[in-house]
Amino acid sequence: MISDKMKEYVSKSSIIRAMFEEGKKLSAVYGDENVFDFSLGNPNVEPPESIKKAVFEILNEESANLVHGYMSNSGYGDVRSAIAENINKKHNLKLTEDNLVMTCGAAGGLNIILKTLLNPADEVITFSPFFGEYENYVNNFDGKLVIVPSDTETFEPDLNALEDKINPRTKAVIINSPNNPTGVVYSEKLIKDLAEVLNRKQEQLGTSIYLISDEPYREIAYDGVKVPYILNYYRNSFVGYSYSKSLSLPGERIGYVVCGSDADDFDDIVQSLNVANRILGFVNAPSLFQRVIAKCLDSKVDVNIYKKNRDILYNHLVDIGFSCVKPQGAFYLFPKSPIPDDVAFAAEAKKFNLLIVPGSSFKCPGHFRLSYCISYDKIKRSLDSFDKLMK
Amino acid sequence: MISDKMKEYVSKSSIIRAMFEEGKKLSAVYGDENVFDFSLGNPNVEPPESIKKAVFEILNEESANLVHGYMSNSGYGDVRSAIAENINKKHNLKLTEDNLVMTCGAAGGLNIILKTLLNPADEVITFSPFFGEYENYVNNFDGKLVIVPSDTETFEPDLNALEDKINPRTKAVIINSPNNPTGVVYSEKLIKDLAEVLNRKQEQLGTSIYLISDEPYREIAYDGVKVPYILNYYRNSFVGYSYSKSLSLPGERIGYVVCGSDADDFDDIVQSLNVANRILGFVNAPSLFQRVIAKCLDSKVDVNIYKKNRDILYNHLVDIGFSCVKPQGAFYLFPKSPIPDDVAFAAEAKKFNLLIVPGSSFKCPGHFRLSYCISYDKIKRSLDSFDKLMK
Repeated sequence: MISDKMKEYVSKSSIIRAMFEEGKKLSAVYGDENVFDFSLGNPNVEPPESIKKAVFEILNEESANLVHGYMSNSGYGDVRSAIAENINKKHNLKLTEDNLVMTCGAAGGLNIILKTLLNPADEVITFSPFFGEYENYVNNFDGKLVIVPSDTETFEPDLNALEDKINPRTKAVIINSPNNPTGVVYSEKLIKDLAEVLNRKQEQLGTSIYLISDEPYREIAYDGVKVPYILNYYRNSFVGYSYSKSLSLPGERIGYVVCGSDADDFDDIVQSLNVANRILGFVNAPSLFQRVIAKCLDSKVDVNIYKKNRDILYNHLVDIGFSCVKPQGAFYLFPKSPIPDDVAFAAEAKKFNLLIVPGSSFKCPGHFRLSYCISYDKIKRSLDSFDKLMK
Repeated sequence: MISDKMKEYVSKSSIIRAMFEEGKKLSAVYGDENVFDFSLGNPNVEPPESIKKAVFEILNEESANLVHGYMSNSGYGDVRSAIAENINKKHNLKLTEDNLVMTCGAAGGLNIILKTLLNPADEVITFSPFFGEYENYVNNFDGKLVIVPSDTETFEPDLNALEDKINPRTKAVIINSPNNPTGVVYSEKLIKDLAEVLNRKQEQLGTSIYLISDEPYREIAYDGVKVPYILNYYRNSFVGYSYSKSLSLPGERIGYVVCGSDADDFDDIVQSLNVANRILGFVNAPSLFQRVIAKCLDSKVDVNIYKKNRDILYNHLVDIGFSCVKPQGAFYLFPKSPIPDDVAFAAEAKKFNLLIVPGSSFKCPGHFRLSYCISYDKIKRSLDSFDKLMK
């Protein structure tokens, strides 16, 4: 009796569940400490202490009906103002509360943006490899996800291929930097070139093409690399932000969407984001955590913990012969699979108690993803298994 | 550039916004204390003290990465088990964690149920008057909402009309008891009769017809009235529950969906609810508040506060000549408009600083809704305005 669309999703998700169950079986046989699960993006670094402090303060000082009550579907005005000012300071912008809508994480944010933009059969472009949910989100509104490849030596998007794929039905382009699954950070030059392509095509076609930057990993960046803020480079921009990784709060579903005031049809857009939050059933971003993050705008998780993980794992893999772009952000490595069949390689890895995700899951076969948001000690103990696997 | 569907929503919501702005204008002129806003369903009763206590305990005692981290898209297993046991005790059932999916409020719950059930053009029936969002939620999945009237003397649904409207495309029937906007509670006999109609039509048509009970007001019931639990009366049942009103936590977006194990295609359904939570962008119900409610299963807001409000307002309105079904639950009155045009009547009410919602908004013209989740004192001071309005 379930819908045709969901039948397909359920059968796909059964495969993932089977993998997960197999992992649990391995743990039962070999002990949890001897199974090396690099498959999940669940942050292992603790949220900053300021989160707990903020919760206590708010519950002690603010009215319970304010803290836990309904507010505008866009979120509390004072929270949005505080975030806007914080962004302005960092990126030299002039945002106000009217440029922000608080969302149930970046996932909620992307969905209200796509609900706002897409008529059935409209196209959204993204670059492979990419986070698989983009396809589902676009599909929620009967849009079509169009995939443009990246150069697999650098994982920078192929902008010529992008230009070729843009047509009158193209409503948006989604980018994700720092990137899941590659860890690559898009440079300022790349963002400028991308903006140039989009501006040129907008003019040629007489349409609006929105650039959507999915930024759950913005704060997880290493080696002093800068993550450009796209509102400074392209007028028709959305940023979908999440505190899932920057504050290690993925379960709390808290984030926001930013749209610049000079975007085409700005007034309709912000009003539509507000309404979409309501009619899609989000209603509003969770209220207590809206107020919490407003008190923790300069807090961050300890990114050095992830950096140490990246360094030991990346260095070891390269030493033993894996080919891999050195990631400058997020908490993923995306090495080449030593055999062309990445699914077979992932199955092989399991024999050494290594749980990894084939690149095919990100529409980039011949690679595999390692999430290194697990303990340093476990990564260290896993290195031996990678040696054996490589042999 | 926004989508055609959203253009329509945005223009509708502009009307509501205009009303809201007008209300603010009235407050500015006459003072907030002299404007009687009966238009919003935002609980004014404080959450029980146990909520705050539970938050403090959890943050002090449980690991921050557990409390704020990802879990199964269906929610924490221990939380679902605890809720299942609590329901079993109250309603003599045998639910387990597998019968429950934690959701972002009842709105999130209804959306994952409808995503699970609906192919485009499938039909969902509800009874007027009804909460307007049902139409939007069904529309999210390209379904069609079919409206069956209630008897306006009792606000019990017309089951003959229901039977006539059921056809092979009918996938679900949504009920809401205690009801928004009428405050009526469906009796056990009514639920039994409803189940009989659905069973008969299922057999005739050879289809599955799911009964969805939207229950944010279950605990807000007066005069010892029983709210029947539909899993005890009909096999193909869903309950969409929310803590928004029972614990005064509407901003926290916390609730759950229950489906009975003997529902048709139960395994596919629960798996689909899980996947729908993910792909619609909810991902999971907010994590801290999942853990909080598991510690507050026997907590309730003080329903007597609402009862006192109902009594003074209902008694006064009836005394001065309004005709109104006496509500046994929720925090709404739905009197007949003394003039046939309910929209004109609401405009008239505004002249006496009374903000009310016309029945047309609930597809039941000739009535108006009063939300009495405001302070007793304010209700008392508003009575004079109702007198003047009636004259």
